[in-house]
Amino acid sequence: MEKVGIIGIGATKFGELWKQSLRDLLAESQLKAIEDAKISEKDIDLIFTGNMCSGDFSGQNHLGSMASEILNLNVPSIRVEAACASGSVALRQGMQAIRGGEADIVLVNGVEKMTDVQTRQATTGLMGAGDEEWEGFNGLTFCGLYAMMARAYMHKYRLTREQLALVSVKNHKHATYNPIAHYHNEITVDQVLNSSIIADPLTLLDCSPITDGSASVVLAREDIARKFESPIWILGSGQANDTLSLHARKSLTEIPASTHAAQRALMQAKLGIDKVNVTEVHDCFSIAEVMAIEDLGLIPRGEAGRIMEEGQTYFDGKVPVNSCGGLKACGHPIGATGIKQVWEIVKQLRNEAGKRQIGKANIGLTHNVGGTGSTVVVNVFGRDRENKGY
Amino acid sequence: MEKVGIIGIGATKFGELWKQSLRDLLAESQLKAIEDAKISEKDIDLIFTGNMCSGDFSGQNHLGSMASEILNLNVPSIRVEAACASGSVALRQGMQAIRGGEADIVLVNGVEKMTDVQTRQATTGLMGAGDEEWEGFNGLTFCGLYAMMARAYMHKYRLTREQLALVSVKNHKHATYNPIAHYHNEITVDQVLNSSIIADPLTLLDCSPITDGSASVVLAREDIARKFESPIWILGSGQANDTLSLHARKSLTEIPASTHAAQRALMQAKLGIDKVNVTEVHDCFSIAEVMAIEDLGLIPRGEAGRIMEEGQTYFDGKVPVNSCGGLKACGHPIGATGIKQVWEIVKQLRNEAGKRQIGKANIGLTHNVGGTGSTVVVNVFGRDRENKGY
Repeated sequence: MEKVGIIGIGATKFGELWKQSLRDLLAESQLKAIEDAKISEKDIDLIFTGNMCSGDFSGQNHLGSMASEILNLNVPSIRVEAACASGSVALRQGMQAIRGGEADIVLVNGVEKMTDVQTRQATTGLMGAGDEEWEGFNGLTFCGLYAMMARAYMHKYRLTREQLALVSVKNHKHATYNPIAHYHNEITVDQVLNSSIIADPLTLLDCSPITDGSASVVLAREDIARKFESPIWILGSGQANDTLSLHARKSLTEIPASTHAAQRALMQAKLGIDKVNVTEVHDCFSIAEVMAIEDLGLIPRGEAGRIMEEGQTYFDGKVPVNSCGGLKACGHPIGATGIKQVWEIVKQLRNEAGKRQIGKANIGLTHNVGGTGSTVVVNVFGRDRENKGY
Repeated sequence: MEKVGIIGIGATKFGELWKQSLRDLLAESQLKAIEDAKISEKDIDLIFTGNMCSGDFSGQNHLGSMASEILNLNVPSIRVEAACASGSVALRQGMQAIRGGEADIVLVNGVEKMTDVQTRQATTGLMGAGDEEWEGFNGLTFCGLYAMMARAYMHKYRLTREQLALVSVKNHKHATYNPIAHYHNEITVDQVLNSSIIADPLTLLDCSPITDGSASVVLAREDIARKFESPIWILGSGQANDTLSLHARKSLTEIPASTHAAQRALMQAKLGIDKVNVTEVHDCFSIAEVMAIEDLGLIPRGEAGRIMEEGQTYFDGKVPVNSCGGLKACGHPIGATGIKQVWEIVKQLRNEAGKRQIGKANIGLTHNVGGTGSTVVVNVFGRDRENKGY
């Protein structure tokens, strides 16, 4: 199977960016990625843009055309959507277009402008990631769905409320080292426990925020990528889907699509999960990171609480998770998140992550979830494909 | 380049389907296409679904997961969006996934549930196909944009209002022969001219309606498709993008992306436009069909008025266009339209189009436009690849 290299990355600051429109954000990350790759926009054959809610939040669909217009190109340019996994799904389409011979160089974007609407509209719009007919219609919010998963997990595995809070505490710490992160303040377990209840047991500080942001990457066919300085390789990619609604699943304490997607990606990469040095997982809520590290097989089932207490998931621990600050503290502009995860892994594999740089970063993994686990994409990245030390 | 065959098609009735939800529509067309292909749903490796406005109109995004859930599959399933060209863009993704070795058999859907919202919300949602920041914000409607194109074309090429009305008259006539069409009534030039003005010079009967509907096709790798009865081949596919906003273009009387997409598709198919026997074009408004047949090179520039008066675009004429009734009379469920066009071409190439069957249908072409020409996809289909009579 044709290998695909990442030759450029770019991201905006994540945050409440009142002065930047959807178009401004997309333009900035696109141009940064093109500049980072040291190519001309004319080298781009194809563009994919991951986005969930621009129709709801900005009255603007058809982002494919916006993305190509910004660069004054008439190449095919397409928006893809898979709720919170939109960015990673866009990356997969870009990769497949290169493998299929449709393109040599592909620009992949993820973007979301979320702060132009009222919280109520954002909450309703985001529920479109779940099942409107069976969940949203009956009054469930997206936070409510994950709250049920949190309750079930805490009961089954005796996870304490304090242990759960450690996800947010760690991710806020990491974000202090990440210049683009939405938040740069450290928080404590007490602060998490005492912040407003959103959907019991989840409090405000268990939840990823409403964030604006955009991220872009430039992909290239293997022989082209080899001509560039330190390309990062996509070694494997897996996607799995599951029911739209949570009630149709057999268990509330795990996300089977995460396990399936990881198996597919690792099989394609011909690697075991033990070879992965650095991981970005989908912590839309604290409980989501807990389930993710178990679903991926990074740690044994039910042991997340203990392992987090031991500090193993910090960037300098044995199982570094979300060194960028995760969705919780770097922010979660829905469509941008999957590409921002790739941005962070590329930073780590290039040894450009500054104060949050993990020691040995040869293999990285991204895990991006749409809905309550209805779409999961896992991608595996490597610094140098020929390196036998993997 | 790997060839891709179409081995199954399915479509719901198009219309105001009050009793069917978005999910019902999607389920019906998927199951019909699978039944038509005589495969099991377990044979499907990958699903793409084209849709524009389900977030706006049904509070439901994440249709990829819905599509796979309906079939009880956990295969990758993705929604793509390019405004009114969403269906054709989904088809291209499915085709590329097969060419890239990602899948052997792919299900491609197009769906839109439009009648659950008020007209005002539909009008606003559809303007998301244009440029919200520069067009929608300043009060332009989507009909208004095409009305400006109509005025400019009528002025430049001396097209009369009566000639323009012939598009709708012909498409309503064709629809009377199409069982799935939204409308089964014939209309006259006088009726078009005397119906309510929507955006001068366009009247109600110049505009495609708000329609519910879903269409699906099953694609297969060449060697697999050859085992099925009368596969139809995708011989070439082209997509071109242009500016999101109409004011950024050089001309109001043509859509350059249509010409570029057609050139790319015909070059891939190694065919001239003169070899095409049957064409489905994007007549979201009457003027759109006029420009389309000229942009594609089916007739000389500026001669649409005369050629329509001679009846050449009827299904039994020299240049048969929109034998299904087009967007005007078959209906225009946005995301479904691109796939419904393929459905019609497959019907024609299989010689299954009943009373609207054109005489010699060896090569068919679909032309699907997003926005005012910001995304255009042209696909070319053939009945039998080895047939040297093309």
